[in-house]
Amino acid sequence: MTVLSAYQQLFQTALKDSLTSKGPMGLYDPIKYLLSLGGKRMRPVLTLMAAETFGKNQNEALGAALAVEIFHNFTLMHDDVMDEAPLRRGAPTVHQKWDVNTAVLSGDAMLIQAYQALETYSEPLYGKLTRLLSQTALEVCEGQQYDLDFESQQEVTEAQYLEMIRLKTAVLVGCALQMGAWIGGASDADARTLYEFGMLLGTAFQIQDDYLDAFGDMKSFGKQLGGDIIENKKTILYHQAMNKGIKEQKEKLHLWFSNPTSESDKGQKIDEVKVLFEESGSRIASLELVKKYTEKAFKKIEMLGISGEGKDLFIGFGLQLMERKF
Amino acid sequence: MTVLSAYQQLFQTALKDSLTSKGPMGLYDPIKYLLSLGGKRMRPVLTLMAAETFGKNQNEALGAALAVEIFHNFTLMHDDVMDEAPLRRGAPTVHQKWDVNTAVLSGDAMLIQAYQALETYSEPLYGKLTRLLSQTALEVCEGQQYDLDFESQQEVTEAQYLEMIRLKTAVLVGCALQMGAWIGGASDADARTLYEFGMLLGTAFQIQDDYLDAFGDMKSFGKQLGGDIIENKKTILYHQAMNKGIKEQKEKLHLWFSNPTSESDKGQKIDEVKVLFEESGSRIASLELVKKYTEKAFKKIEMLGISGEGKDLFIGFGLQLMERKF
Repeated sequence: MTVLSAYQQLFQTALKDSLTSKGPMGLYDPIKYLLSLGGKRMRPVLTLMAAETFGKNQNEALGAALAVEIFHNFTLMHDDVMDEAPLRRGAPTVHQKWDVNTAVLSGDAMLIQAYQALETYSEPLYGKLTRLLSQTALEVCEGQQYDLDFESQQEVTEAQYLEMIRLKTAVLVGCALQMGAWIGGASDADARTLYEFGMLLGTAFQIQDDYLDAFGDMKSFGKQLGGDIIENKKTILYHQAMNKGIKEQKEKLHLWFSNPTSESDKGQKIDEVKVLFEESGSRIASLELVKKYTEKAFKKIEMLGISGEGKDLFIGFGLQLMERKF
Repeated sequence: MTVLSAYQQLFQTALKDSLTSKGPMGLYDPIKYLLSLGGKRMRPVLTLMAAETFGKNQNEALGAALAVEIFHNFTLMHDDVMDEAPLRRGAPTVHQKWDVNTAVLSGDAMLIQAYQALETYSEPLYGKLTRLLSQTALEVCEGQQYDLDFESQQEVTEAQYLEMIRLKTAVLVGCALQMGAWIGGASDADARTLYEFGMLLGTAFQIQDDYLDAFGDMKSFGKQLGGDIIENKKTILYHQAMNKGIKEQKEKLHLWFSNPTSESDKGQKIDEVKVLFEESGSRIASLELVKKYTEKAFKKIEMLGISGEGKDLFIGFGLQLMERKF
């Protein structure tokens, strides 16, 4: 934990220094606002950690760490517009505090700033990093599109759902690690293996997030339980139940998810939907998926050409993340 | 004209070939739609022309030409959201035909695709081109922000207005030319001079556009005259009148621009506002600005280390553009 918070602190300082106070304020103030709301900074921490594990000073990875975090926050700013989300990290979202036009335009500027954060690197590193950023960024857009598409789709296969979260969430974790590895001087093979570790771990984390929203322990999950059910959000649990359940279970679930949740129904809806997730086999199947992806992720680490200490660092990070202690 | 249409045709074919038919359709169909609506393709034509003038085959500049045109259309897609514009090139805008979320997300994907279009180039060209794209793209965002800011600002100085159109419109014309020049093998000095030619010509063109909307000849301008006045759009004519006019003229103008235009008022409003533009000295001052920027642009061409034939090509393009024959 001390190692992780040291990375977090280094990144936090670099981020603060990078926030310009130039005009137009209408464009840059919302960027500063969102980037200052905090967050775990998981992705930039991974970038710094990877660079150091492969032998470079973590300071050399700050440009890429900034690129990854600015890009991530760009997606948050635009996704919040698309989801009409009122809050982000407990504070008003940018389109709520300013307006939709501001969130669109300041988000655009952030996407460009993510590329610019890579300009501290020389060739051939700069070319490799920007190409990976472009590929990842486009995949994240594709993932968001599939997520929007799935909202109005009754049945989504497990494979389709996994591909969606791979694109929307997991590839950026992989990208953060691969960038750090490249900067650290890793071989292309090691950098790619670390990318795959991040992608698999990111996938496991996202499925677990869906699972914990219904079946977690409120104290360690840190969010109101059953939120996805109340909002009719079709997570892995919903899709698995719609695929694995018998006709009657599917009809019941479909009915619950077809109507907005009234205040008085909340408790009953959460309880009954959880029973449907249990009886259809969806709960167990989702848990097994988490396990499968976590194990696959950790196997990648074994393949790396680094010291046992370095391997322990990544495994340790993965365990803390999956135990929600990061 | 034949030279220009040859460039247009080459670009058109390359653009058509570049449009993927991969999924998700919800993301890529709106991109295809907007890019297929046409347009003069002025920016990519300039990129091809510049590369050829400096000695390379125009085909080598197609990647940069695509980047510039895709980027330009990304700004159109997002600007149309911000302006709530129903039509673009006579067809429904993307947010009108689909919805705002689609226009936001597909626009984001286009910005990334603009960077990817540059991936056909090797180092050091790739690095120079992407850095210029980032710088230009961020300036365009800043210009759009100033434009939005000015809508609610009564008085805007001539310098502020010129800086706004430089950022919002003119730098991308410069960027298109500088990219082509670099690809053609021009020296950095020549590439920069050509950038400045584009920036100055783009500025002249935009001021002329404001001017012609009120004082143009409908046949050659190709748009309904007085449109900006009806929409209370604060163009250079408005800002110059508010700066140069006497108190009474400014009050009258302010009143006209403070209320939505009723159908029965249209004709009278256009007539009276044009009189105010005339009497305040704004019309003449705007015309003089167009002349000043056009002349400054053409002087840049004289400085280039290229053949007289090459110079004639750029001057010829500039003349055709300003005579609205392109």
